[in-house]
Amino acid sequence: MSLPFHGPTAGILVIGEEILSAKVEEENARYLVRELRGLGVAVRRIDVIPDEIDEIAEAVRDMSSRYDHVFTSGGVGPTHDDLTMAAVAKAFRLRPARNSELEAKIRSALGPALHERDLRMADIPDGARLLYGPDGDHSRWPVVTVKNVYLLPGVPEIFRRKFEMVRERFRARPILSRAVYSRESEAVIAATLDAVVAEFPGVAVGSYPRLDVAEYKVKITVDGRDAALVERATARIVEGLGPAVVRTE
Amino acid sequence: MSLPFHGPTAGILVIGEEILSAKVEEENARYLVRELRGLGVAVRRIDVIPDEIDEIAEAVRDMSSRYDHVFTSGGVGPTHDDLTMAAVAKAFRLRPARNSELEAKIRSALGPALHERDLRMADIPDGARLLYGPDGDHSRWPVVTVKNVYLLPGVPEIFRRKFEMVRERFRARPILSRAVYSRESEAVIAATLDAVVAEFPGVAVGSYPRLDVAEYKVKITVDGRDAALVERATARIVEGLGPAVVRTE
Repeated sequence: MSLPFHGPTAGILVIGEEILSAKVEEENARYLVRELRGLGVAVRRIDVIPDEIDEIAEAVRDMSSRYDHVFTSGGVGPTHDDLTMAAVAKAFRLRPARNSELEAKIRSALGPALHERDLRMADIPDGARLLYGPDGDHSRWPVVTVKNVYLLPGVPEIFRRKFEMVRERFRARPILSRAVYSRESEAVIAATLDAVVAEFPGVAVGSYPRLDVAEYKVKITVDGRDAALVERATARIVEGLGPAVVRTE
Repeated sequence: MSLPFHGPTAGILVIGEEILSAKVEEENARYLVRELRGLGVAVRRIDVIPDEIDEIAEAVRDMSSRYDHVFTSGGVGPTHDDLTMAAVAKAFRLRPARNSELEAKIRSALGPALHERDLRMADIPDGARLLYGPDGDHSRWPVVTVKNVYLLPGVPEIFRRKFEMVRERFRARPILSRAVYSRESEAVIAATLDAVVAEFPGVAVGSYPRLDVAEYKVKITVDGRDAALVERATARIVEGLGPAVVRTE
């Protein structure tokens, strides 16, 4: 994936019929995009798709080849609409197989309350890895991982808990961000931005008009991993905008 | 796209580097998914992608072929990161061309304050249609439309205003939804749901576990356009769950 500054990228795949049908608001991608950004990972795509095995498989395969890390949300329970494990197996031509470690966990957790159907949650793609937290506590339910795809559950509380178990694996060089606020409109400052974009291919320049604030008309952002480069590009924008600059941050 | 019940479908494409970089929270898809659902349109996919012309073009082409209606958000201003018009032209192999109706609007609105760069907003794919509201008021800025793709701006206030101009075009037979709340877990009720899914291919059955409420463990939803079918499938779930039913709605 093209990105002006180098470093790890990620895709987020939300398997969420309940979001597409407007029954609940999306929370997991909203949380994860902030977490990954904080870790220095550049999210390049978020897709929300329905519980359809071929569509999930296609999206997983595509994201896995494009980005360094892929996170899926949802579809890992024991009912008819929980298709993520089977879809990931299909995406990578792996056999779904009952994992003995997970099966033992389910049996020991549920005891006599066990329903045969609960064991479906132990059916994962053959060759999947089970990741536990950095504390090495193997009593918890692990994060199931296939190649660079991390399969997280859809229930927001558990999604967060599971991501926290693996989050430090993704820490990278921080992405720095500066902002310049302009009292002039996008059309007025566009030529300056063009020149900076051409001169600094190592940073990402964004231009965001706002209508609902009186203080400024456009917020310009400069993102990158190289602090000196980000500073120089920001200084060039400030210089080019001259009296149009309200403030920087 | 497969969908258990027939009727119009939609895809939402958010061109939003600012969302991927966690600078702002997504608002437009969140609004639109509710609006479309209320109109009887089944949203089948939401993608958030960066300001990259080839990636936008690929997503537009793909969504346009899969769904009845496609809505894009963002990338329609006059700066370097506004690539949606060029990308949609590329998606459909159309020439980008300066539209005289839009050019006249910009010139008359801005008068002597006009910057050459403002006119870039009149550059749209050749053959695009300009849609005005049902009141026929041609003094407003229209919604630019190419085939089944509706190009909406990213600024949330304007996004909503523009969608409201065209919303009644999309009204379809309503999607009905019933819910059954279960005090038993997904594993316990999964076989019942399987049987209902097999017996009623004309409805969509969803199963959503909740951990943060004491009243029930799973919310089961039954969606469809055929009221009698939705009622029969719901009754079958209630019957199958028996004493596990907390309530229905």
